Amino acid sequence: MSHQALYRDTLSLLTDLYQLTMAYSYWKSATAHKEAVFTMSFRHNPFQGGFAIACGLERMIEYLQSMRFDESDISYLATLLGTDSKPLFETEFLSYLQTMRFDCDIDAVAEGTVVFAHEPIVRVRGPIIPCQILETALLNIIGYETLIATKAARIRIAAGSQSILEFGLRRAQGADGALSASRAAYVGGCDATSNVLAGKLYGIPVKGTHAHSWVMSFTSELESFKAYAQAMPNNCVFLVDTYDTQDGVKHAIEIGRELVLHGHKLAGIRLDSGDLAYLSIVARKLLDEAGFDETQIVASNDLDEHVIKSLNDQGARIDVWGVGTKLVTAADQPSLGCVYKLACIRQDDGPWQYKVKLSEQAIKVSTPGIQQIRRFSGSDNLFVADMIFDDSCPPTQERTLIDPIDFTRRKTVPNTASYEDLLTPIFRKGKLVYVIPDILQIKERTCDQVSRLHPAIKRLLNPHQYPVGLETSLHKKKTELILAERKLHESMLQAVD
Amino acid sequence: MSHQALYRDTLSLLTDLYQLTMAYSYWKSATAHKEAVFTMSFRHNPFQGGFAIACGLERMIEYLQSMRFDESDISYLATLLGTDSKPLFETEFLSYLQTMRFDCDIDAVAEGTVVFAHEPIVRVRGPIIPCQILETALLNIIGYETLIATKAARIRIAAGSQSILEFGLRRAQGADGALSASRAAYVGGCDATSNVLAGKLYGIPVKGTHAHSWVMSFTSELESFKAYAQAMPNNCVFLVDTYDTQDGVKHAIEIGRELVLHGHKLAGIRLDSGDLAYLSIVARKLLDEAGFDETQIVASNDLDEHVIKSLNDQGARIDVWGVGTKLVTAADQPSLGCVYKLACIRQDDGPWQYKVKLSEQAIKVSTPGIQQIRRFSGSDNLFVADMIFDDSCPPTQERTLIDPIDFTRRKTVPNTASYEDLLTPIFRKGKLVYVIPDILQIKERTCDQVSRLHPAIKRLLNPHQYPVGLETSLHKKKTELILAERKLHESMLQAVD
Repeated sequence: MSHQALYRDTLSLLTDLYQLTMAYSYWKSATAHKEAVFTMSFRHNPFQGGFAIACGLERMIEYLQSMRFDESDISYLATLLGTDSKPLFETEFLSYLQTMRFDCDIDAVAEGTVVFAHEPIVRVRGPIIPCQILETALLNIIGYETLIATKAARIRIAAGSQSILEFGLRRAQGADGALSASRAAYVGGCDATSNVLAGKLYGIPVKGTHAHSWVMSFTSELESFKAYAQAMPNNCVFLVDTYDTQDGVKHAIEIGRELVLHGHKLAGIRLDSGDLAYLSIVARKLLDEAGFDETQIVASNDLDEHVIKSLNDQGARIDVWGVGTKLVTAADQPSLGCVYKLACIRQDDGPWQYKVKLSEQAIKVSTPGIQQIRRFSGSDNLFVADMIFDDSCPPTQERTLIDPIDFTRRKTVPNTASYEDLLTPIFRKGKLVYVIPDILQIKERTCDQVSRLHPAIKRLLNPHQYPVGLETSLHKKKTELILAERKLHESMLQAVD
Repeated sequence: MSHQALYRDTLSLLTDLYQLTMAYSYWKSATAHKEAVFTMSFRHNPFQGGFAIACGLERMIEYLQSMRFDESDISYLATLLGTDSKPLFETEFLSYLQTMRFDCDIDAVAEGTVVFAHEPIVRVRGPIIPCQILETALLNIIGYETLIATKAARIRIAAGSQSILEFGLRRAQGADGALSASRAAYVGGCDATSNVLAGKLYGIPVKGTHAHSWVMSFTSELESFKAYAQAMPNNCVFLVDTYDTQDGVKHAIEIGRELVLHGHKLAGIRLDSGDLAYLSIVARKLLDEAGFDETQIVASNDLDEHVIKSLNDQGARIDVWGVGTKLVTAADQPSLGCVYKLACIRQDDGPWQYKVKLSEQAIKVSTPGIQQIRRFSGSDNLFVADMIFDDSCPPTQERTLIDPIDFTRRKTVPNTASYEDLLTPIFRKGKLVYVIPDILQIKERTCDQVSRLHPAIKRLLNPHQYPVGLETSLHKKKTELILAERKLHESMLQAVD
């Protein structure tokens, strides 16, 4: 069952009004047949980290496949008024919208792929109107899932081989936010979720036992554990901190002995407050002394990759991390800040006009061209560098890349490096040409991709910067465009490069 | 059209698995007929502010009205396994779930009401199983919308009577996150949204003109403005910073003159980068000199209440604020951190047993009882203080309130103060007994409520703390329960209070 099945109908109106006013203006000014290429990218690796994990493509595909304006959408648009209180859109345009299909070519990086700032992770090509209308939802879907998959991958780095459960539903930003988060967290490295609907929709393992309220609804903690064990002996992880954690562990052990007598096991205990390093060590000792050395210790309470790393560094005896709010809201950076920029355009089948958007800040200047990413790997299988090049004239022997922000930083990749190009055809003229992998395959891809990063790039704080650069001729083209836009002369152009 | 109409069917599985394992264990241990009271609250006013705006009730009502487990939900639950690889749930329990109805009593604070940390903003009473299952979605929906409405109210305070547009869809956490955010932002104080679907679903005004890509798709900025003005003369707000802002303003003025010649107007210009204070002053001067003194200046670019206040303090000439990412993701605090605590419970129609959850931190100790909020107002109509009391024995003359964290802080409300009780019946035995106000009424309620706060409480940084306290007998009851749980003796109890 797909996520899209959640929705009764099309979500085509899930877009910014300006996409529709621009669409109208293209239609009205008879430039609707312009063909455009847009690229989606982000400007900084999130969480001050060294990489990101691409995610959200499956949702994007579902979204695009159901994209059309229905009767009620059109009726709604007909009610909108301009500054003169007259209708914003002509009826003929609304009829055009209703029959319009999203017949674009879309290329994207596969989910679970390591990606970096400035790279074109999605490329959209087609008639300018549909290219423009789908911008908003694409940024929303890919931006959020990529953000959360990245956060989960960082938590996975901190947790090593320990288990990670995602518990974020209650604190997520809306129902859909939570569902996307559960999926992306699983792709990024979590082992299971508490979110039952995410389990049903995406085939993710679901986990959970009981809350403080279970304990409080009985006259004593011991009685509550006993009742739970009798009801569900095959799912016993007791939350031990409702009143006093050490007493709680002793009560869990007492009920654990009864479980064992009846052929069951004490699967775990959960700590949800207090000094998790200290309490986990004490709990481990109590459990081991009682013979429960296979009983797992689950910890939760505002965890993120930094707290998990710190607890592990302190020798905490935690087997399973329950991570919620800080994962699903990406608390230290709740938005990836993706952008979608016009990279080239042409009239009819004429030559492509390459486009840049200027800005006072170099990081906000966009890159022109029909971009593709070439990733080089060394003989040890580690990733070496990524080159952004123009797919309409792929480089042959060229292996020098130029930093997109600071053109004095350059790197030449050795000839021995192998490579693959990352953007893959997803849609051709609106037709799906991509086979969506199973979620477990996507998750395994993440794991493999992260393993191919040098450890310095995976460092949680102050990581080494992975080399990403423009291929020489694309860099040159971009520089020329910038200078031309800034109305500088040919002589100065030559002085720069 | 309601938000729920978005969804194909029930979202009942949008809950944590532990709600269902607890439900199963209640059912299995024959304690399913216990009657419970839960209260939802948050522990800190968000954004280090002095208040919050309750929001999300309408969505919660829609959610609850469609709550039931359908065939496919039950089939999915039947596939879940325990640690012994046997089914987690017995078939009979699943049949019980399928026929179960959410026949609870729910009381809540009306949307648009000013609320504070520790207050019971929703109270749920009923058979313990449905009370427990609805916890997760309730926290998700009310928590997120309250967070965003509060953020919007703070932005409204910073913007004064200037307009605020919400532009956050592309950077929001998922589709539903964006929709909830657009609704809550409007309730909290925004004037319009860019999100067309939110406009259609909730009747919120939608706004938007064009993006940088529109300008870039033409050979010059001037040409692009001209084409837009010809296509849509009744919606002209030109984005002027694609290449150079001052040139952009001059081009807007040039096209503005043509618009005026044809009986239209230059509605506005938009600044999206650079020094907004400086550029807005320069733009205002250029516009005024050209006779466009009614043309509005719209500003956007990572705005929040602090940036808006600072720009206004610097004398920026901005009429309309476009606020996106930082509003819809509540970037400085992306979760309200709501909790849902068992407050009392009883077997059959026996006496209520009051419950507290202990913690090392006083702020995490829950409050017992069937709570209600009494808000006192002065003769100047300003809110004076809120008292949390036990609805099963409402206070008569008692007007002393005791801080829930620090019992030495007390306040006595003057007898002249009038009051109203804030929790209103929403459901009785699962039946809706509340008339949902129109969204504009809710928005007006926010405006009125915020106007009744003393300015010191509305301060964006280091606000004055609005007095919220427990009524004396409820405080006493809570203290007794804590001490009893901590196994302290009667003698010590008397020493404390």
